[in-house]
Amino acid sequence: MQTIQSDSYPIFFENSIQELVNFVEQGNYSRCFILTDENTGEYCLPAVQTALAHLDKTDIIEVNAGEESKNIDFCAGIWKMLIDFGADRKALMINVGGGVVTDMGGFVASTYKRGIDFVQVPTSLLAQVDASVGGKTGVDLDGVKNIIGTFTQPKAVFINIDFLQTMPPRQILSGLAEMLKHGLIVDQAYWDSLKTSDLSLPSVDLVHRSVEIKNEVVIEDPHEKGIRKALNLGHTIGHAVETWSLMNNEDHLTHGEAIAIGMICEAWLSNKKIGLPDDELAEITSVLMKLYPKYDLQEDSFGTLLQHMQNDKKNENGNINFTLLTRIGQYSIDNVCTPAEICDSLRYYAAL
Amino acid sequence: MQTIQSDSYPIFFENSIQELVNFVEQGNYSRCFILTDENTGEYCLPAVQTALAHLDKTDIIEVNAGEESKNIDFCAGIWKMLIDFGADRKALMINVGGGVVTDMGGFVASTYKRGIDFVQVPTSLLAQVDASVGGKTGVDLDGVKNIIGTFTQPKAVFINIDFLQTMPPRQILSGLAEMLKHGLIVDQAYWDSLKTSDLSLPSVDLVHRSVEIKNEVVIEDPHEKGIRKALNLGHTIGHAVETWSLMNNEDHLTHGEAIAIGMICEAWLSNKKIGLPDDELAEITSVLMKLYPKYDLQEDSFGTLLQHMQNDKKNENGNINFTLLTRIGQYSIDNVCTPAEICDSLRYYAAL
Ligand SMILES: NC(=O)c1ccc[n+]([C@@H]2O[C@H](COP(=O)([O-])OP(=O)(O)OC[C@H]3O[C@@H](n4cnc5c(N)ncnc54)[C@H](O)[C@@H]3O)[C@@H](O)[C@H]2O)c1
Ligand SMILES: NC(=O)c1ccc[n+]([C@@H]2O[C@H](COP(=O)([O-])OP(=O)(O)OC[C@H]3O[C@@H](n4cnc5c(N)ncnc54)[C@H](O)[C@@H]3O)[C@@H](O)[C@H]2O)c1
Ligand SMILES: [Zn+2]
Ligand SMILES: [Zn+2]
Repeated sequence: MQTIQSDSYPIFFENSIQELVNFVEQGNYSRCFILTDENTGEYCLPAVQTALAHLDKTDIIEVNAGEESKNIDFCAGIWKMLIDFGADRKALMINVGGGVVTDMGGFVASTYKRGIDFVQVPTSLLAQVDASVGGKTGVDLDGVKNIIGTFTQPKAVFINIDFLQTMPPRQILSGLAEMLKHGLIVDQAYWDSLKTSDLSLPSVDLVHRSVEIKNEVVIEDPHEKGIRKALNLGHTIGHAVETWSLMNNEDHLTHGEAIAIGMICEAWLSNKKIGLPDDELAEITSVLMKLYPKYDLQEDSFGTLLQHMQNDKKNENGNINFTLLTRIGQYSIDNVCTPAEICDSLRYYAAL
Repeated sequence: MQTIQSDSYPIFFENSIQELVNFVEQGNYSRCFILTDENTGEYCLPAVQTALAHLDKTDIIEVNAGEESKNIDFCAGIWKMLIDFGADRKALMINVGGGVVTDMGGFVASTYKRGIDFVQVPTSLLAQVDASVGGKTGVDLDGVKNIIGTFTQPKAVFINIDFLQTMPPRQILSGLAEMLKHGLIVDQAYWDSLKTSDLSLPSVDLVHRSVEIKNEVVIEDPHEKGIRKALNLGHTIGHAVETWSLMNNEDHLTHGEAIAIGMICEAWLSNKKIGLPDDELAEITSVLMKLYPKYDLQEDSFGTLLQHMQNDKKNENGNINFTLLTRIGQYSIDNVCTPAEICDSLRYYAAL
């Protein structure tokens, strides 16, 4: 499996742990700080730690698992540990975990002593196919997601799909939604192979192709001014549904489950507004409905959902902007849809 | 007075407030957030606010004055206010204050939504001649100075020396130490003109020349790998003395007062080790002793002072590294001095 060369750093897929060891050996770092959470500390850290043991220069920093940890207080805790450990400018951060660990670890490293090197070892499917590429670091504040952060590239990314074996199936499905999205926006053949694969544990080829697609998109548009908007497919409605669910359901939707709903609704809008063929709408709907549980979308939530969309930082002047599809594999950015159209797309999903 | 063009941004010296207004008018910003502290809020903010009033798009954020405010908790407070005010990616931060406000405001802006534009309106002499150039932003954590930060350039710097009229004289003297340093390291003629000027309120020409020198040095070495070390003159010993004083004196030394002591000691080392002429050592000593009060340096503090120097992030492998002078106006970096030599230089100062 070929290494992908991003903007300024490599993304490894084969013998990744050994590649990490090589990287550290060649790097002349004063010390390595491995950031994990409770789960990756149990399931993924041992392999990394064993591989690096002979170098005798690693310290471990562990945070609680979950989005609740991704905030400035935890950053302050990590910065303080770096100070206590005596981390200097030649220190390396190795972030071993899902998107929470890679986003927060990247932010901490990019601001400690005005920036030390860091590498990503993404261990969740979502982190591998999405968070690992693009250079966005960040944490939440006051309930606002990723509001504090930097654009800083890691020095390397090490993807090891064996780590996925301990991921709960529902978390795998969450990452899978982004892979399906990658197919829908630019690569029909990839979408077709996803359709016919066993997706309970995606193969390294599938993960690789997803990373390749995301990488191509972000390299063309590193600061999110144009075509990076392609990646928003499913996210305008999906984010609103995710926020609604976070506030109203005890056992709330995962990110991917919400994005799957968003992709169905936005496929409907694509069909209505820019000519996505009827059979392709039917295909997208049926593939996603087979993979993801049906969510009970009620008419009386639509007002709130629309409000969330209007407040979304991606939208301007009250218009709600969509990335839609003209065909499977062909995206189209900056499509404004009216509240009435959006409600109809939600009704389409609700009636399935 | 000519505008200085730094790496990517201009530094204005004339009609600076009007230049700020022009900048904001041309900038197409959604909103402006002015950061001040209690003192600059009283003395400097009114002029800025009046000049921008017709645009009707400024909000004020005020922090307590002093280094104690320069930390992550205050950053979190400012970030939250930006969220509450609805600041988007097209917002502008205008930092009106001394180095505390410009350093912290720069850090907050460089990390809010992964970076919004900011400009600096430095109002203290130290901020004008030192903090305003070089792209270092940062805050303190756990008593460690500037440990968290980024390298991010402002979009412009607006220097207005009229603001200095309300600065306490002791604060003026603190900034002056950096100006004297600029002369000592690269410009004998500038040093000579400083010697013969009324320094109770430095002229715009003197401030301009200082900024010009710092700008030339940092442009050549933006990430502090080589010649930027020239700026460390007086700071190896000066920082140690400053830290000692912070911990031992109720009314502790200002940064500049400590750096002046450092420059005298390091001039002595320069004379001893790399041939700074005797008369130039005498001249440096007498100019600085006339400007700054004598500090009571006791032999029993030397051990602690040496330890501070050894822990300094600028030093490696226990060696203590100095920027020294071969002549007034000619620096020399990476000179290692022994503890015995350093103690002798402290004794030279103590015996003055
Ligand atoms: N930077 C970006 O471009 C980007 C892109 C997408 C998402 N994100 C961010 O990523 C986060 C979501 O990512 P996530 O779903 O990985 O969250 P996560 O890090 O919280 O991981 C989800 C759960 O899986 C566990 N886990 C991770 N790897 C495991 C493994 N190998 N075995 C067993 N359990 C494991 C974690 O401990 C956690 O409980 C969000 O904060 C989101 O904002 C960032
Ligand atoms: N970024 C850099 O490259 C750089 C360089 C040097 C120093 N610094 C930082 O700058 C800080 C020190 O700068 P400082 O001395 O300006 O500190 P400061 O901001 O605390 O200002 C000193 C005092 O003067 C007051 N003040 C400022 N302008 C005034 C005015 N016009 N009239 C009346 N009072 C005024 C302030 O309120 C404060 O009480 C330190 O935190 C230091 O780390 C940064
Ligand atoms: Zn997503
Ligand atoms: Zn200084």
